[in-house]
Amino acid sequence: MTETLIRNVRSLGAMATDVLVRDGRFAEGDPAPGCDVIDGGGALLLPGLVEGHTHLDKTVWGSGWYRNAVGPSRLDRIQNERAWRGPGGHDPAARSLELGRAFLANGTTRLRSHADIDPDIGLRHVHATMQTRAALAGVMEIQIVAFPQSGIVGQPGVADLMDAALADGADVVGGIDPCAIDRDPVRHLDVLFGLALKHGKPLDIHLHEPGEMGAFSLDLILERTAALGLAGQVVISHGFCLGMIPPADRDALLERMARLDVRIATTAPAASPVPPLALCRAIGVTIFGGNDGIRDTWTPYAVPDMLDRAMHIGLRNALRRDDELDWALDCVTSAAARGCGFADYGLAPGCRADLVLVDVGTVAEAIVTAPPRRLVMAGGRIVSGSLDAA
Amino acid sequence: MTETLIRNVRSLGAMATDVLVRDGRFAEGDPAPGCDVIDGGGALLLPGLVEGHTHLDKTVWGSGWYRNAVGPSRLDRIQNERAWRGPGGHDPAARSLELGRAFLANGTTRLRSHADIDPDIGLRHVHATMQTRAALAGVMEIQIVAFPQSGIVGQPGVADLMDAALADGADVVGGIDPCAIDRDPVRHLDVLFGLALKHGKPLDIHLHEPGEMGAFSLDLILERTAALGLAGQVVISHGFCLGMIPPADRDALLERMARLDVRIATTAPAASPVPPLALCRAIGVTIFGGNDGIRDTWTPYAVPDMLDRAMHIGLRNALRRDDELDWALDCVTSAAARGCGFADYGLAPGCRADLVLVDVGTVAEAIVTAPPRRLVMAGGRIVSGSLDAA
Repeated sequence: MTETLIRNVRSLGAMATDVLVRDGRFAEGDPAPGCDVIDGGGALLLPGLVEGHTHLDKTVWGSGWYRNAVGPSRLDRIQNERAWRGPGGHDPAARSLELGRAFLANGTTRLRSHADIDPDIGLRHVHATMQTRAALAGVMEIQIVAFPQSGIVGQPGVADLMDAALADGADVVGGIDPCAIDRDPVRHLDVLFGLALKHGKPLDIHLHEPGEMGAFSLDLILERTAALGLAGQVVISHGFCLGMIPPADRDALLERMARLDVRIATTAPAASPVPPLALCRAIGVTIFGGNDGIRDTWTPYAVPDMLDRAMHIGLRNALRRDDELDWALDCVTSAAARGCGFADYGLAPGCRADLVLVDVGTVAEAIVTAPPRRLVMAGGRIVSGSLDAA
Repeated sequence: MTETLIRNVRSLGAMATDVLVRDGRFAEGDPAPGCDVIDGGGALLLPGLVEGHTHLDKTVWGSGWYRNAVGPSRLDRIQNERAWRGPGGHDPAARSLELGRAFLANGTTRLRSHADIDPDIGLRHVHATMQTRAALAGVMEIQIVAFPQSGIVGQPGVADLMDAALADGADVVGGIDPCAIDRDPVRHLDVLFGLALKHGKPLDIHLHEPGEMGAFSLDLILERTAALGLAGQVVISHGFCLGMIPPADRDALLERMARLDVRIATTAPAASPVPPLALCRAIGVTIFGGNDGIRDTWTPYAVPDMLDRAMHIGLRNALRRDDELDWALDCVTSAAARGCGFADYGLAPGCRADLVLVDVGTVAEAIVTAPPRRLVMAGGRIVSGSLDAA
């Protein structure tokens, strides 16, 4: 038995307390005599942070600056990326590992990553992300989404590649813009839901489609979710349409999503309409956060720190009050764990001992300032931070 | 004569060069034998950064965390702030100086600050900001806007207080939402333009008003600007309406603004409509950046770093390409100096020697990463950074 006692921390800003970790999990009862003791110094205690939507395989993080001259359409960016990585200069295993480690150092202990599949790269990016998943096993739990970035219907072999990826150990069936990218929503969704049923795995579908087009695709997704008994098995990533359509239509869709427990992953982009956070919560839709791509051929922005992403979620949703900023933290902690289905999550006894200590007074201050991490523990192991033994 | 030679810097990302500073200004010709020499180490050279719209007097920067429980309307925030500072616990001189110094350390050498005037505080905030202006004279040029935060028409004595502030040395006539706050646009604007003519000083008017209401106020402002011959003397701060009204109406207003050289200060908020940056530039309207309030009773967000604000401008306007990010830098350098009327600005010989060195490759990287400042020089004096004498 290994045991660590962390003394004098404030759990999510409450009164100071001690935290006991036994064999990698939070525990109750008295600490064993002579167990390791860490002085928390009155720091704010947060659960391990959760990244709900990123693309580890695409990043240039840790290599040189990528001069972006791409655009303006989404298709331009997809084609530019395929041409750029074609020659093999991009190493998705090395890059994803470096970015994963940077996430971990900032306290992210669970992460969902969409790994590209297309006719050029086949399963190269899926396998690279699996290498990173294996390298970080025990400290970071990574879910891999088999993601058809260029579509399925018009891309020979991609449906079979996705099937193979799921058989190989990808965790989630990905999809993208059934109308706008694949131009054949029924066949696109037939492939996705067919794979989900065959492999018994959940779905996470990128939906950038605007306005009524996006609402139509979402309607088709909800119809299939209900008909196939897949409540609680579907995430909609982005869902920009929910920030664009008339309020009555939006509310009707959100109420169906709540009933079917269809979740929303938002990156809270400043320049796009977004699903309204407070309303989603009020209606009972689980909404959580992610960075999307970090420093890649699509975008120069973002950092592997979920406190920074929580700040962007706050800014985008006009959260100013301290109690509103608790919602932003929820997006990168509990709501994200629930949305992605990460098990044994939280600060309760029995949960995996993932935690972050920061030297600030309140949750709001942690989000706005994204302070240095005093300590990061993952699965009961200290993975980052400087410590004073008491 | 004092002379400093900075060797081996890349001006805005161009080829490496040397920069000569003589008596506080950039100079041409050969350096004097034995002059001070600084090794720039190949760093990126930027001109001094410019903050075009902030509120130094309101900040709690450097004091404890302000727990925000205010809202939801703009009027709630105005009234909360007046009640909060009433007891005198807020020291606008100390706080504004601390925030001004933090700006300077990050390379901001010119700054426009709106100082509140209302019946409760009278000229206390104006005079506090003047103290900070005096304390930082020589290294930071501060413009003070006499700002009627609670309005003029319904606030006894505020017009006279503004008159007194301008006589005392405030630089700019401020205003706010002639319809929504003062509920009498003609009388509000009569006061502002009357003061501008009386004192021979320019105007900077907060315009949060949405849609057609804001467009109506803007129309009235442009009408008076033309009639009174005040082309080049007016800034519209925020101008959210320009992101809301139909394109034909918006373009007609922007074209009138371009003809009258009426400028726009944008804080690029993620949760509000904004004047479209690329279109403003294309039509010939000067648009520049500011943080608005930093860590005050209105908002927990923002930091005194114009590279961070440039990032938010980039995010809000969907600037992804490296060449587009040059526009974001322009918003916090040349366009802001032009918009606010700061003289002797830039890196050309004869300009005031304000400069920033950062150890990154490109302008885009400087904006996205907001790196530590290797060196900040203001008026020829080194005010921040660690140096190696060569």
